[in-house]
Amino acid sequence: MSTTTTPTVSPTPWRAGSGTELSAETIDRIDRWWRAANYLSVGQIYLLDNPLLREPLTRDHVKPRLLGHWGTTPGLNFLYAHLNRVIKERDQSTVYVAGPGHGGPGLVASTYLDGTYSELYSDITEDTDGVRRLFRQFSFPGGIPSHVAPETPGSIHEGGELGYALSHAYGAVFDNPDLLVAAVVGDGEAETGPLATSWHSNKLLNPAQDGVVLPILHLNGYKIANPTILDRIGRDELESLMVGYGHKPHWFEVADGSDESHESIHRRFATVLDEVLDEIAAIKAQAAVEGEDMARPAWPMIVFRTPKGWTGPEYIDGKKTVGSWRAHQVPLASARDTPEHLQVLESWLKSYAADELFDDDGRILDDIRELAPAGELRMSANPHANGGVLLRDLRLPDFRDFAVDVPAPGAGAVEAPRVLGQFLTEVIRRNPDNFRIFGPDETASNRLQATFDVTGKQWNAEYFSPEVDEHLVRAGRVMEQLSEHQCQGWLEGYLLTGRHGLFTSYEAFIHIVDSMFNQHAKWLKVTNHIPWRRPIASLNYLLSSHVWRQDHNGFSHQDPGFIDHVVNKKAEIVRVYLPPDANTLLSTYDHCLRSRQYVNVVVAGKQPAPQFLTMEQAIAHCTRGLGIWDWAGTEVEGEDPDVVLGSAGDVPTLEVLAAADILRNRIPGLKVRVVNVVDLMRLQDEKEHPHGLSDKDFDTLFTTDRPVIFNYHGYPWLIHRLTYRRTNHPNIHVRGYKEEGTTTTPFDMAMLNDIDRYHLVIDVIDRVPSLRSTYAGLRQEMVDARLAARQYTREHGEDIPEVSEWVWPDVGETGTENGGPQYDAAAATGGDNE
Amino acid sequence: MSTTTTPTVSPTPWRAGSGTELSAETIDRIDRWWRAANYLSVGQIYLLDNPLLREPLTRDHVKPRLLGHWGTTPGLNFLYAHLNRVIKERDQSTVYVAGPGHGGPGLVASTYLDGTYSELYSDITEDTDGVRRLFRQFSFPGGIPSHVAPETPGSIHEGGELGYALSHAYGAVFDNPDLLVAAVVGDGEAETGPLATSWHSNKLLNPAQDGVVLPILHLNGYKIANPTILDRIGRDELESLMVGYGHKPHWFEVADGSDESHESIHRRFATVLDEVLDEIAAIKAQAAVEGEDMARPAWPMIVFRTPKGWTGPEYIDGKKTVGSWRAHQVPLASARDTPEHLQVLESWLKSYAADELFDDDGRILDDIRELAPAGELRMSANPHANGGVLLRDLRLPDFRDFAVDVPAPGAGAVEAPRVLGQFLTEVIRRNPDNFRIFGPDETASNRLQATFDVTGKQWNAEYFSPEVDEHLVRAGRVMEQLSEHQCQGWLEGYLLTGRHGLFTSYEAFIHIVDSMFNQHAKWLKVTNHIPWRRPIASLNYLLSSHVWRQDHNGFSHQDPGFIDHVVNKKAEIVRVYLPPDANTLLSTYDHCLRSRQYVNVVVAGKQPAPQFLTMEQAIAHCTRGLGIWDWAGTEVEGEDPDVVLGSAGDVPTLEVLAAADILRNRIPGLKVRVVNVVDLMRLQDEKEHPHGLSDKDFDTLFTTDRPVIFNYHGYPWLIHRLTYRRTNHPNIHVRGYKEEGTTTTPFDMAMLNDIDRYHLVIDVIDRVPSLRSTYAGLRQEMVDARLAARQYTREHGEDIPEVSEWVWPDVGETGTENGGPQYDAAAATGGDNE
Repeated sequence: MSTTTTPTVSPTPWRAGSGTELSAETIDRIDRWWRAANYLSVGQIYLLDNPLLREPLTRDHVKPRLLGHWGTTPGLNFLYAHLNRVIKERDQSTVYVAGPGHGGPGLVASTYLDGTYSELYSDITEDTDGVRRLFRQFSFPGGIPSHVAPETPGSIHEGGELGYALSHAYGAVFDNPDLLVAAVVGDGEAETGPLATSWHSNKLLNPAQDGVVLPILHLNGYKIANPTILDRIGRDELESLMVGYGHKPHWFEVADGSDESHESIHRRFATVLDEVLDEIAAIKAQAAVEGEDMARPAWPMIVFRTPKGWTGPEYIDGKKTVGSWRAHQVPLASARDTPEHLQVLESWLKSYAADELFDDDGRILDDIRELAPAGELRMSANPHANGGVLLRDLRLPDFRDFAVDVPAPGAGAVEAPRVLGQFLTEVIRRNPDNFRIFGPDETASNRLQATFDVTGKQWNAEYFSPEVDEHLVRAGRVMEQLSEHQCQGWLEGYLLTGRHGLFTSYEAFIHIVDSMFNQHAKWLKVTNHIPWRRPIASLNYLLSSHVWRQDHNGFSHQDPGFIDHVVNKKAEIVRVYLPPDANTLLSTYDHCLRSRQYVNVVVAGKQPAPQFLTMEQAIAHCTRGLGIWDWAGTEVEGEDPDVVLGSAGDVPTLEVLAAADILRNRIPGLKVRVVNVVDLMRLQDEKEHPHGLSDKDFDTLFTTDRPVIFNYHGYPWLIHRLTYRRTNHPNIHVRGYKEEGTTTTPFDMAMLNDIDRYHLVIDVIDRVPSLRSTYAGLRQEMVDARLAARQYTREHGEDIPEVSEWVWPDVGETGTENGGPQYDAAAATGGDNE
Repeated sequence: MSTTTTPTVSPTPWRAGSGTELSAETIDRIDRWWRAANYLSVGQIYLLDNPLLREPLTRDHVKPRLLGHWGTTPGLNFLYAHLNRVIKERDQSTVYVAGPGHGGPGLVASTYLDGTYSELYSDITEDTDGVRRLFRQFSFPGGIPSHVAPETPGSIHEGGELGYALSHAYGAVFDNPDLLVAAVVGDGEAETGPLATSWHSNKLLNPAQDGVVLPILHLNGYKIANPTILDRIGRDELESLMVGYGHKPHWFEVADGSDESHESIHRRFATVLDEVLDEIAAIKAQAAVEGEDMARPAWPMIVFRTPKGWTGPEYIDGKKTVGSWRAHQVPLASARDTPEHLQVLESWLKSYAADELFDDDGRILDDIRELAPAGELRMSANPHANGGVLLRDLRLPDFRDFAVDVPAPGAGAVEAPRVLGQFLTEVIRRNPDNFRIFGPDETASNRLQATFDVTGKQWNAEYFSPEVDEHLVRAGRVMEQLSEHQCQGWLEGYLLTGRHGLFTSYEAFIHIVDSMFNQHAKWLKVTNHIPWRRPIASLNYLLSSHVWRQDHNGFSHQDPGFIDHVVNKKAEIVRVYLPPDANTLLSTYDHCLRSRQYVNVVVAGKQPAPQFLTMEQAIAHCTRGLGIWDWAGTEVEGEDPDVVLGSAGDVPTLEVLAAADILRNRIPGLKVRVVNVVDLMRLQDEKEHPHGLSDKDFDTLFTTDRPVIFNYHGYPWLIHRLTYRRTNHPNIHVRGYKEEGTTTTPFDMAMLNDIDRYHLVIDVIDRVPSLRSTYAGLRQEMVDARLAARQYTREHGEDIPEVSEWVWPDVGETGTENGGPQYDAAAATGGDNE
């Protein structure tokens, strides 16, 4: 077991049930809770006023715009009620994930019934006026979302885009050995790809170290306008599918139109739920004995097959509603304008007999409230669902201890993520239970393999033999499945429950989670304005197989556009870093791991590359976020440069330095300034982004009137966008990634996109007024050098040595005369024609 | 069955096998083909020269950069060889989809062996020199991709991003009743979400009308650095999983390290393959009798469990290689520089005994070639895999017949996609077998329900009762699964095999397929430069639930950024249209359905909205792509306007017109020009995009010096990016979507983003120099009107009537005096203060 214990609200988790039959009183209490929750759900969707129906319902009591989703809601409410009962009996810390997150009214209702809602939102009081406000605010201008959202107490899972219920649930239970997540999976969302693969999460769960996910497949049979696939494949196939996913299915079915009494229904479900929790208790008891070496059990799950829109109107205008897709959204959409529908609505509301549930003041009866557990055992108040409350700072080593020695700028051939891996190894060692690395089979490929010195890849499927099962462990810090959706979903769940982590992926494939990033970014944006939601750790990306090095994936991987996607989001939550070498990467990542409520995108190549900054310089550079590399330039103190060479990204920076080297040698006296950008947001205006530079500072760096050649990692347009309002913007010329195809050799790739050293020199000659005529010869030489380099790769399959072996000259010992191999374009192209 | 027959290369498809045992000669031929394919695969990865090893292997024969993937390749080759045999015996038209697309060398080798490669690439001759060039070009600068790609004959499925093998395969067989797709699914890709749900495609396949997908799960056990989940869940669970997915699994297993003879292995697999094809033949025979009403059978699939890197070096440097993840990429990465490794490579290559396979000239022996079928029955030459060859134009009705009557601009309340639906209904009627609509449960929600008059949603899972199973049919033109990945993958497969279609989705969720769009866009870009690849129909999106109308999904859906994502791709393949009303939508879609090789993104809201252009005007407007709406402006002939109001998108256009209405009434004499943009790419420079406008034309529309207020559907920055080089760019002020949250009422949403009419008037007053002081009163009135409108929604839950009931005045009868309800800000805010 882990050396530190995570906070728990369960004094004695995983207790077995009492085994005694439930009293009629308990069953009745469950039923009345359910009725109350359903009543409050319908009220939210329809009612503007007359909340407890204490006067006859009129059209003016009905909202003018009826918005929301009824269909899934009664099922969600049913499950919430029953879970209350078992949580209270077993003191089992439980988080509720509502996969069908459009059932927002249900979660609001349930969390109002257990008291949390009014504790957090004091305006939503526990009386008639409070109920009125509760109803009115729902999906109303200035009110709350119609879906489960950050505003919903107890939620770590937003409605809207479907498919992530299980990956969020598993993320939540990793390293929370005492936590149960009841994860309701909609049969609509079950058709999505991400959900379909997320069942396999159980192969990466450790029964001892981690908590338990109880998937409840809410098989209510319909989507917006169609049946669901899983409801229509027959019981045998669905049973097989769940068994194939590694589960032991428990079936609970209520047929549409059944006349079974509520009492009988509740009793049957209570039995199923107790069985399932007893099975889980038995597995956890076994895990307590066997520890982390326990093999994967067949975890129970529930198939919960109930009618869509259950307890609503059976038929409306002669059309079947309950038990059909017609119950999905608002079944009586014209309740305000059709008297007959208004009457159906009134009967429907009255069917729950609110007067038996609420007292004269409009408060839920104590006897019903009793169903819920107390305090933090309420699913709505479980601290894991407000992860910031539990968040502990990482115990971080001093990243400076992992510094790469850089005796002179441009020395070395270091894989920056490999160095980061050494730092992360120590992070893992010091934080054995609240930090994980997620990636789709690429942790080693992305050069973080040092981490395997202290941990392994968590794996609870079969083991074959040590010679093939390297670094696989029953309980480890690295989580790998070949699914970016899974990695992102798990990490989100892990962060939302108050832990730390990072996601390492190929830049080309990170677009797979574009929409998941959207949803998480929105969560962060919204929670920034919800006082009771405490800040959580940032979501950190490390994109180290980037578009400039295709290598094994020649011609098939592509696109640095994730940065563009990210930058569309609110400035207050997104950060983009392009550290040019190992020490800047260390400094950047230390910063990221300390931060809160951000999405940090860090792009840093994994190939051996020259190092530029000592750790001291790196810290200063990263602290500023960008700056002049005076050792690389040829400025004259007190004078403006003739040209500024800017860069962001490791490969573009290397090419800028190589260009600066050429310029230094070949155009003596040219005043070149070299500026490097680590923190991309610094380019933006301080009014646009908290990291933005003031105009004055920007002007100081990039001048107000000199040509700027900016060599950028991604699509060039983003740099224009970020610098659009700057004085010198008309003179900023950006080179970057173009959709021009790709190649298998690095410099060839740079040339294809015109970000190469030779082209940069051409750019300088073309843009510094005095050079064009004087240096026409050098310009032609550069054109020829590109041609020669291209021809070389076509013939030899690797980059021309003068490029691949180039290192930054030790200018301290005067430029061209140091010992190392260096640029010699003159030799290559037949001498300087100037 | 369909009224038209699709082209077929099978004279008698779905024949049963002969039932006789295979001769030793045939088995030997299969084995020699396999050896040859493996030899050619290894050669591609490693060899620069000495292709047939006719001299001792030296380091100079080895490529300096070893790039590629060996691990999956021998399995792919094995399957290709065996499929050749059965295709030839049964004359069965078959397409091969290589899910593990990184096994590129295998597909290149196989298509070279059957002769197609040399037919298409005349430089890659069938002799020793040709083999040398074949090897050299692989993953080499100026050469071919290391993955299966558009360049690979017979491919409709690119390597790189994994997960779409089955959705592409199913897309290919829809409406191709005689086609078999052998879809190899990698056990790595099987872990992705999209693949995990794509098994369910069989619930949407019709056994009579559609062809057959034979999934072959290539269970070779390892990814880059990990075992695969499906290889490690035990045979029983995997069997259950496949049964749960609706398949009948057939197992074929070769244990790692087995000493079973190749002869025995081939014989066993040949038996399995014949069994499977006979089962398929029986199902198709049944379908021929029962027709399209046949219920879903349990389609066979094959679990193909063979060692990773099969036939490669068992151990390298004492580490297990075959049967481990170490065989994934290039097992002997230092073959060039380590003599010992060079020797291993030589032994490995020699183990295939190339001299027994190729003649003295380096040509494959005729006897081996004989294994492959002839002509178009070769999987590499199957015309379905070069869909443009089979593509027939759609028989389109005259879209003008579906025109909405627009007696005066601004009249009506029409749901534009509903009108498009009527047009599409006729498209479906006239093209019963080569046009489909794909969508995640939203065809009706997106207002295309008219199509159900002539077709239905294809569904081959269970049916319950007509009262809930509306519009479900065994064979239909509409394909719905709640998975954007499935919709996109199916449509791609359908288009790539020469048919037509569209994908209708919510704008907020289309980001789910960002990366799939990337891959398809890349396919189009590359095929534009491959002469033998014939153009295919465009991929058409219809995004009709857009970000300006949240409605039922209040606060939970978001982000118009798909357009930004799309515009990052090469101009020659992307088109973005924002038709402002029904007639422009009709004209736009007619154009899209006729186009080739594009991705067309069409955004058009589904809510009732005013109509602006008669069909004649709409056609003229769409032909130009943008233009002045003179009826909406107050220009004076021959004079420059004082201000230009531009718009793109339906809601922004409505607000511009409402603003123009206010300006017309309240600032008499102000010369306002109203410009609307349908084709977003028209804004760009003609040098940047084929649709781009010349600077002269742009200046004529937007002036060179007048303020332009541009009201845009998406993130504002894109308009700046597109107009960046225009003369008047400094005066273009863009309003658009901001990440500011959202609201449930439409006008409230517009106000939140400052794209509303009142704010536009404020913008005009602020930007037209003469107005600021004179119209301070009107400005304040607009500020107050916004406040009042906001307060109204907060109180009533719907937009203020003066906004929601506003219609464009019939200016022909002089502005303010017509009968309809209209803007009356003076009344609302207490009079004009000017």
